[in-house]
Amino acid sequence: MSASFAAASAVRRMGGTTWAGEIAPGWDIGGNADGGYTLAIAARAAAEAAGRPDPVTITAHYLSPGRPGPVTIEAQVIRRGRRFATVQATLQSAEGPVLALLGSFAELGPYSGPERVEAGPPDLPPPEDCLLVEATDTFPPPFMGRVELRLHPDEVPFAAAVGPPRVSGWFRFPGGEVVDTLGLLVAVDAFPPTVFRAGLPVAWTPTIEITAHVRARPQPGWLRCAFATRFITGGFLEEDGEVWDASGRLVAQSRQLALVPRG
Amino acid sequence: MSASFAAASAVRRMGGTTWAGEIAPGWDIGGNADGGYTLAIAARAAAEAAGRPDPVTITAHYLSPGRPGPVTIEAQVIRRGRRFATVQATLQSAEGPVLALLGSFAELGPYSGPERVEAGPPDLPPPEDCLLVEATDTFPPPFMGRVELRLHPDEVPFAAAVGPPRVSGWFRFPGGEVVDTLGLLVAVDAFPPTVFRAGLPVAWTPTIEITAHVRARPQPGWLRCAFATRFITGGFLEEDGEVWDASGRLVAQSRQLALVPRG
Repeated sequence: MSASFAAASAVRRMGGTTWAGEIAPGWDIGGNADGGYTLAIAARAAAEAAGRPDPVTITAHYLSPGRPGPVTIEAQVIRRGRRFATVQATLQSAEGPVLALLGSFAELGPYSGPERVEAGPPDLPPPEDCLLVEATDTFPPPFMGRVELRLHPDEVPFAAAVGPPRVSGWFRFPGGEVVDTLGLLVAVDAFPPTVFRAGLPVAWTPTIEITAHVRARPQPGWLRCAFATRFITGGFLEEDGEVWDASGRLVAQSRQLALVPRG
Repeated sequence: MSASFAAASAVRRMGGTTWAGEIAPGWDIGGNADGGYTLAIAARAAAEAAGRPDPVTITAHYLSPGRPGPVTIEAQVIRRGRRFATVQATLQSAEGPVLALLGSFAELGPYSGPERVEAGPPDLPPPEDCLLVEATDTFPPPFMGRVELRLHPDEVPFAAAVGPPRVSGWFRFPGGEVVDTLGLLVAVDAFPPTVFRAGLPVAWTPTIEITAHVRARPQPGWLRCAFATRFITGGFLEEDGEVWDASGRLVAQSRQLALVPRG
């Protein structure tokens, strides 16, 4: 199977509300498939069910780790409106449910209404001056061979944080594959956890849920991404992400809720 | 029917995966039930299905306006784990689906792991020095008779904004009713839209989706709430909320995606 995102997240309709796909090898972190990649497989089936390509707002709840192998997606359209179609879906492996999804899909196009933004893309050195994260069999994980991440040199994992724990850098798919709005779902979950920069004894924070808002289709080229965590409390932390395209436009926002292991 | 939140959001199991409830009169904004209140009805059925009371992370997609009258909720447990149970639900009226929900429920209790917070509750004058929003038949809406909102006097709707559009204030239920973790779902959607302070020709922003994270059960008393919008772009805006309890603890975070009418 090709290592491209499009091939690794392909699905085929089996009839009715059922799609088949595969969690491809090499997209894992310690043996478990990256959550954004797994979401993208389910989202591709949900977008087909919706008949609209772009996940304007999509939420996944993670139920069990995704291992390489065949999966099926059940995708049910709850409502098909003039502009949005809302879909409930689950992605299952032979061992049981891996994730549940709720998303509203549309066809994003040019927009000419009021705009006001309070912040711009993160300030990053050029990609060649950032730190390329190279895949290994362990850490950094194999998944890093499926994406190209270049981290801000001051914000690499385990570097001391000043202010809120933050990670930023460049993202693209290797080999010139264009990042579409499903590819953005990989971008929002591809970076090392911000909590690695929080100075806390936390080595692992399983994601309970992630929500991504897709504002626009990205222009081809590098994406600028930034992630920050403000509240590590009650046994949970949020991680807020922003993704900006090569034209300087905000293309996605994300927030995930992760579990902080009990002390 | 009582005006209390608990009574107005009550549900009864009809058997199998079906619950019955009612959108009570008086919880509306221009005839349409408040989105947080409608979500709370569905969430109460979902929590019963889950067998766990607290919506740790819950997402609703709004499909059509909720009008007063009977509703049914279909709530399906996707996975029941050791700590979390994940539920898909829809709330339907006689006219069709009103909202779809995906939530993970748990039983929140004391926690003793690592904590780190980057911000505290919003700085508010005491409730008696804030602006009580009183219900009318039109605007402010009838819904304001079901909750008690006291807005920061510098951040009332349509006041000029300095920096990101922001609304903050105090929230409680009238008559001393305690706000539980389902009541927090009302709090995160009860305030006037931040966009009213953006200086834009926008009078109405329908919510597409809201996600709330509940970190802890609130202590009795006033809640301090703050909402802000950073990105009005592509025809959408996000509104990020924080809710802090009387003990100064962050009890909920929220983010909603709303539609900006086309220019």
